[in-house]
Amino acid sequence: MSQKILLIHGPNLNLLGKREPEKYGNTSMKDIERISQEHGSKHDATVSCYQSNHEGNLVDRIHEAQTQGIDFIIINAGAYTHTSIALRDALLSVEIPYIELHVSNVHSREAFRHKSFLADKAVGVVCGLGVFGYKASVEFATQYKK
Amino acid sequence: MSQKILLIHGPNLNLLGKREPEKYGNTSMKDIERISQEHGSKHDATVSCYQSNHEGNLVDRIHEAQTQGIDFIIINAGAYTHTSIALRDALLSVEIPYIELHVSNVHSREAFRHKSFLADKAVGVVCGLGVFGYKASVEFATQYKK
Amino acid sequence: MSQKILLIHGPNLNLLGKREPEKYGNTSMKDIERISQEHGSKHDATVSCYQSNHEGNLVDRIHEAQTQGIDFIIINAGAYTHTSIALRDALLSVEIPYIELHVSNVHSREAFRHKSFLADKAVGVVCGLGVFGYKASVEFATQYKK
Amino acid sequence: MSQKILLIHGPNLNLLGKREPEKYGNTSMKDIERISQEHGSKHDATVSCYQSNHEGNLVDRIHEAQTQGIDFIIINAGAYTHTSIALRDALLSVEIPYIELHVSNVHSREAFRHKSFLADKAVGVVCGLGVFGYKASVEFATQYKK
Amino acid sequence: MSQKILLIHGPNLNLLGKREPEKYGNTSMKDIERISQEHGSKHDATVSCYQSNHEGNLVDRIHEAQTQGIDFIIINAGAYTHTSIALRDALLSVEIPYIELHVSNVHSREAFRHKSFLADKAVGVVCGLGVFGYKASVEFATQYKK
Amino acid sequence: MSQKILLIHGPNLNLLGKREPEKYGNTSMKDIERISQEHGSKHDATVSCYQSNHEGNLVDRIHEAQTQGIDFIIINAGAYTHTSIALRDALLSVEIPYIELHVSNVHSREAFRHKSFLADKAVGVVCGLGVFGYKASVEFATQYKK
Amino acid sequence: MSQKILLIHGPNLNLLGKREPEKYGNTSMKDIERISQEHGSKHDATVSCYQSNHEGNLVDRIHEAQTQGIDFIIINAGAYTHTSIALRDALLSVEIPYIELHVSNVHSREAFRHKSFLADKAVGVVCGLGVFGYKASVEFATQYKK
Amino acid sequence: MSQKILLIHGPNLNLLGKREPEKYGNTSMKDIERISQEHGSKHDATVSCYQSNHEGNLVDRIHEAQTQGIDFIIINAGAYTHTSIALRDALLSVEIPYIELHVSNVHSREAFRHKSFLADKAVGVVCGLGVFGYKASVEFATQYKK
Amino acid sequence: MSQKILLIHGPNLNLLGKREPEKYGNTSMKDIERISQEHGSKHDATVSCYQSNHEGNLVDRIHEAQTQGIDFIIINAGAYTHTSIALRDALLSVEIPYIELHVSNVHSREAFRHKSFLADKAVGVVCGLGVFGYKASVEFATQYKK
Amino acid sequence: MSQKILLIHGPNLNLLGKREPEKYGNTSMKDIERISQEHGSKHDATVSCYQSNHEGNLVDRIHEAQTQGIDFIIINAGAYTHTSIALRDALLSVEIPYIELHVSNVHSREAFRHKSFLADKAVGVVCGLGVFGYKASVEFATQYKK
Amino acid sequence: MSQKILLIHGPNLNLLGKREPEKYGNTSMKDIERISQEHGSKHDATVSCYQSNHEGNLVDRIHEAQTQGIDFIIINAGAYTHTSIALRDALLSVEIPYIELHVSNVHSREAFRHKSFLADKAVGVVCGLGVFGYKASVEFATQYKK
Amino acid sequence: MSQKILLIHGPNLNLLGKREPEKYGNTSMKDIERISQEHGSKHDATVSCYQSNHEGNLVDRIHEAQTQGIDFIIINAGAYTHTSIALRDALLSVEIPYIELHVSNVHSREAFRHKSFLADKAVGVVCGLGVFGYKASVEFATQYKK
Repeated sequence: MSQKILLIHGPNLNLLGKREPEKYGNTSMKDIERISQEHGSKHDATVSCYQSNHEGNLVDRIHEAQTQGIDFIIINAGAYTHTSIALRDALLSVEIPYIELHVSNVHSREAFRHKSFLADKAVGVVCGLGVFGYKASVEFATQYKK
Repeated sequence: MSQKILLIHGPNLNLLGKREPEKYGNTSMKDIERISQEHGSKHDATVSCYQSNHEGNLVDRIHEAQTQGIDFIIINAGAYTHTSIALRDALLSVEIPYIELHVSNVHSREAFRHKSFLADKAVGVVCGLGVFGYKASVEFATQYKK
Repeated sequence: MSQKILLIHGPNLNLLGKREPEKYGNTSMKDIERISQEHGSKHDATVSCYQSNHEGNLVDRIHEAQTQGIDFIIINAGAYTHTSIALRDALLSVEIPYIELHVSNVHSREAFRHKSFLADKAVGVVCGLGVFGYKASVEFATQYKK
Repeated sequence: MSQKILLIHGPNLNLLGKREPEKYGNTSMKDIERISQEHGSKHDATVSCYQSNHEGNLVDRIHEAQTQGIDFIIINAGAYTHTSIALRDALLSVEIPYIELHVSNVHSREAFRHKSFLADKAVGVVCGLGVFGYKASVEFATQYKK
Repeated sequence: MSQKILLIHGPNLNLLGKREPEKYGNTSMKDIERISQEHGSKHDATVSCYQSNHEGNLVDRIHEAQTQGIDFIIINAGAYTHTSIALRDALLSVEIPYIELHVSNVHSREAFRHKSFLADKAVGVVCGLGVFGYKASVEFATQYKK
Repeated sequence: MSQKILLIHGPNLNLLGKREPEKYGNTSMKDIERISQEHGSKHDATVSCYQSNHEGNLVDRIHEAQTQGIDFIIINAGAYTHTSIALRDALLSVEIPYIELHVSNVHSREAFRHKSFLADKAVGVVCGLGVFGYKASVEFATQYKK
Repeated sequence: MSQKILLIHGPNLNLLGKREPEKYGNTSMKDIERISQEHGSKHDATVSCYQSNHEGNLVDRIHEAQTQGIDFIIINAGAYTHTSIALRDALLSVEIPYIELHVSNVHSREAFRHKSFLADKAVGVVCGLGVFGYKASVEFATQYKK
Repeated sequence: MSQKILLIHGPNLNLLGKREPEKYGNTSMKDIERISQEHGSKHDATVSCYQSNHEGNLVDRIHEAQTQGIDFIIINAGAYTHTSIALRDALLSVEIPYIELHVSNVHSREAFRHKSFLADKAVGVVCGLGVFGYKASVEFATQYKK
Repeated sequence: MSQKILLIHGPNLNLLGKREPEKYGNTSMKDIERISQEHGSKHDATVSCYQSNHEGNLVDRIHEAQTQGIDFIIINAGAYTHTSIALRDALLSVEIPYIELHVSNVHSREAFRHKSFLADKAVGVVCGLGVFGYKASVEFATQYKK
Repeated sequence: MSQKILLIHGPNLNLLGKREPEKYGNTSMKDIERISQEHGSKHDATVSCYQSNHEGNLVDRIHEAQTQGIDFIIINAGAYTHTSIALRDALLSVEIPYIELHVSNVHSREAFRHKSFLADKAVGVVCGLGVFGYKASVEFATQYKK
Repeated sequence: MSQKILLIHGPNLNLLGKREPEKYGNTSMKDIERISQEHGSKHDATVSCYQSNHEGNLVDRIHEAQTQGIDFIIINAGAYTHTSIALRDALLSVEIPYIELHVSNVHSREAFRHKSFLADKAVGVVCGLGVFGYKASVEFATQYKK
Repeated sequence: MSQKILLIHGPNLNLLGKREPEKYGNTSMKDIERISQEHGSKHDATVSCYQSNHEGNLVDRIHEAQTQGIDFIIINAGAYTHTSIALRDALLSVEIPYIELHVSNVHSREAFRHKSFLADKAVGVVCGLGVFGYKASVEFATQYKK
């Protein structure tokens, strides 16, 4: 049966491709969502996508994922990675396995981006691989068994 | 005259009873709200209830409490306890006394849950007493004199 | 069958009511012990009381609790809360569940009072609720099931 | 050509003038917005104003500023100054120069208010000058050349 | 009656305009002093100016301010901002209100420039606004009432 | 032209599959090397493999990579990730782009495994994805353009 | 009327003069007590003396001081200076002014002796002056007015 | 001539064998004392034993050891290892060489048990070897020459 | 032969008695110098006095003390106590024993006043005893034997 | 059946007895190995010995121990105790119980020697007992049951 | 053309050779200046020398160096190395390359001497080589090309 | 008699001159060794050279130096400067005086390069002087007397 994957983007990622392209490349978030969905299709998985700049909306969306029977979450929580315990709690509450993902390599940026409230409870972490990171994460998710 | 109490729940507490019951028990948030209201009635107090996963909504609700003449706030701010200075400021702005409450014992959990932005300005803090903690807090609130 | 509760007061709490009443209120420790015992009686529990300024005496008393079949300990360890690993070990050795209690809100006092050697192993923590905190703790203890 | 300035207020600042007047004075946020707009007019600049208690709304509003061709942002982010990396990212994403502003002197308040996620990327920081700080910032903004 | 303002510059600021112009601009300290005095005149205030590379001289000068009936001090203490408790004590001793001012944004520079021994006792802090910061500070000072 | 990739394993990884399989799975290092080479072949890349428990050997091998015209390094440096500045220097000296890779999620392990001397200079970091992480890294490397 | 002074010695000070004389000199604690009493007599003050190795005894003794109408306490708390919050609380409870005293200069000893739980609430601190420190403290106490 | 050894047990060790046997084994403190004495006899040494939960008693007992001509102390100070500077001072005062001993491996327990106020002045430290640690320490003591 | 004592006052102490009398009392520095000299005379010692707000002057004066055959220095270095390694080096260079003295109790003031660069090399430290501290220090100095 | 013990010495221990004899005594490493082997023989155990200054060799040797059916490892890892996570991983990988041993008391040496990467996973730790520590560890190992 | 070098000595270095000769040797500062000048002459460079105990004087002197066309500064700033940001700023303002020099090895002294405000912006740092360090620095300076 | 000097290079220094020439210059390690040897010859000293990327080899080589009667070691330990306690121990074991040397100024690089395990026990430290630093160190070594 086909795997149901949820791809979540946090704050400011709606500007991806427009903002500081030398750091994040030219691909827009919409492109990434499309590429992820196509890649999911190839591996018999559906990928639903969601973005919000609101911490509360992201928490709500994760709760909803449980009701929808989502099997795996891929989350690029942007700045909330480093400040939101609420997101951590939401992910743990719904007990859906997830990958933490970043387009750029957070380890080469400001010190406050080295701390993550999501990483230690994630299945894995992928950063710095740009758009490819999404494809790899989707593919991994399609094979994941709890 | 009867005391007006506001009971606030922060992020993810809407899942109480469903999420990790071995940690939080089986009682749902709706049960807790009902029990608190009944306990309030016994002591001639009205307990209004509010929950949101949105930090901003919680701030808005606290502001509104002032207009409504709320006498006491019981707040289980969940993850926002540890990250939200905005909530602290909201509570101080409206100058309504409050208790910080947690269902589980936060001191036996991750280190980042040991810091609270609300505790030092609270009247008191109660944690680890489960549903009973709500009843005790409501009862305390009914007797509280500024 | 009736529950056996032990109420322990640590150093300087014998001066309660006499010392800095603006911080701790006018109720004396003897009053608190009496109120706790009366509240215990109402819920079919016996409350025995003990106070000492000696860390070693408190450890001895906790050991003795085990022999006496005490079901629950309510401990306001005063300053020893923050400095005594021996008390922690004593409480863990006898395997009796306990509540850590403080009359005032320790979170609004000196930084060295924010650390507790007892909190993470307690069932729960109550602070800032004055005499009411004792009544609530006794009531909770009467309902507690290991 | 006239300069377009956006004045942003963060959480709890809607209560300005009502809340703790001994710390923040009696001027309301509405007064400040009006004074800023009048002061802008004198220097041939339009000042649009926005307030929200929601971190996500503030991020959204900053994104929108880019589309509207805002030349300069004056931001009093309140508590979010100290906790929101998302706001920092939003301001950097839209590449609009900004001043960080506080009504009171944050350096004489709690230690957690000494850290700012916005300051190092701001053009400048102004604090403690009350309403005058807004007028000075507006005037500065009208003269600012990227 | 006209307000008496003292403008103090600390170490190395005598080189302003000559030193690292990309960081501090081309305006010399003498220019700044003249501009500040002219701006003071417009608002019916006299601005006296003083610069020294000697911590002790600055302390002496602040003491002297008291005898001269100075109403307000604007101080750009340069490097001594971060290392001199003696300056702090001098300012507190004479009980003259003051603004801490920096030409550049100290928050975007080395970590040791983020600590100030003057800020928490200042009326306010202004940084990063270049020469404009002086004019704003002078104007603020002319309106200041203890 | 075909891409030349070097896959490096650090200390104790020769025991992979034998050691703590509940943490690292049953796949041996030899299996991983074979899988990586096969995956490389599919994408027209050759993957050479090297393992050593000796920090000095790993440094030597990285130097040699430069002479051999290696285009990309995938390195699972094991414990040396957290202690070896020499490896970092070797990787920077030869100026070959690299991915830091871990089989398990290092963020859920001991605190001393959260620090990496390699991460901030890597193109990206992948952890917790097991064998799949190697395939993804190889695939990424085949597409990488300096 | 004559001033009543209490001189308290903490743990191990009963060995003074016998223990490590190169660090503490040859004068015994009994000598010090006698010298302090004689010096007190000269200034029309009675000096009572107490020593114990038991933290609890010291707390008890301080409580008793209140009943006895002691006007001033001189306390060399030895090792408890650095570990006992209970002593601090006892001294604050009885509201008797006190001097913290050490025979040797604690600042030239181990780092853990640099922290004192008594110093910030003391009238003053004297260390390193040997027996003379006691005489000075007694003399100061005779002149002290609350 | 026969060596005189003193074996000291600190707080809660009187419960050894009864308390958490999976961590400390089933041997009681009385057994350990007997085994140590028998092992001492074999090596022509007398082993006297002492236990107390009172820090002050332990200090007193160490002082007494000097009068009794004790040659070597073996001390399992339990929780006081981590909190008592008074014990450290007592041991240094009497200038009797000592071994610090723990039944379990303190390094695998809570972080606050990793600090010892006794270790740096001890001849040696033995932990985690259970009852065997006592026999080894006694044997070592019989051979020790100052 | 008579003892030669040098009394040094650091920055801002020339304002003593004028500045914040509720903290430092009404006695001026000139009074203190006179009292110290008179007290010295009684004990057959000459007390020379020096004050400067300049760190360099204080260093120069200490150097000069060596040439003058000063036997003992009493230094109230004010703010330089906490920031000047140069003063420490000067005192060590001339090898004259000294007491560190403060009028008020520095331990009850800001945290940055708890660190002293002079204390660990001083003979002793006296603080909080007001003018009496000077008399005691002078008296101690007259008896001091290197 | 006889127990197989491996005794490992880390860097610089080959110089034992030659190097700083006042700290480590005159016994050479070869003597220690011989003594350990003889002591093993008495208790029906074979002790094989290994020394290397190379971290990688030590890791290799530990891996080999598994193949050889070693029952217990006694390891004096010298400086690598404090810097090598690779050794820790090697010991955990082969799942052979071990004692961490030091000839001198590391707690009285530099602060960086107080941290051990091996201690928390060891059965026990012995330090400061010189050659005797080896005999005790061998004897303990012969009795050890996993 | 001949190179112009400025040799600066900070506080207390005027006492070199007189002060603690076991630490700094017997050579006086005057000797060092002469030796440096002679060594400069050999390499066709003029060495001017300056010493002051006043931070401000040192700043002034460095400013003057720019006017005089000094090519290179060799600075032994003594205690100001560790406390003076003003010196750092002065050196950066005049944009003259410099070597930080110490007679003794500062790394084997107190921890507060390990931090330098000058080192990261220096061309190089030399310490512990005594008088030879000056000759080497002069020689290096004669060859230095910006 | 001629002085015997050993010049040691640590990891990655074999690439000197090839690697990041803008940071380290174009001179190769072989050049440096030759220049050092020639400079040694001029001062009647023999300079033997050694490089390895293996920590263990460097330790072995230092041990061997003792047997060979080496009088002085000049060591550029590269990355091992910051991570190797084994090298420190080796240098202390053989009791040969040494200089710590770096081609570039380590103080202007990453924070983890500011800590050295070798510096506090070295005779001196030289950094940032490029090839000249080697010549100066060799010359110093030829004059060094233990």
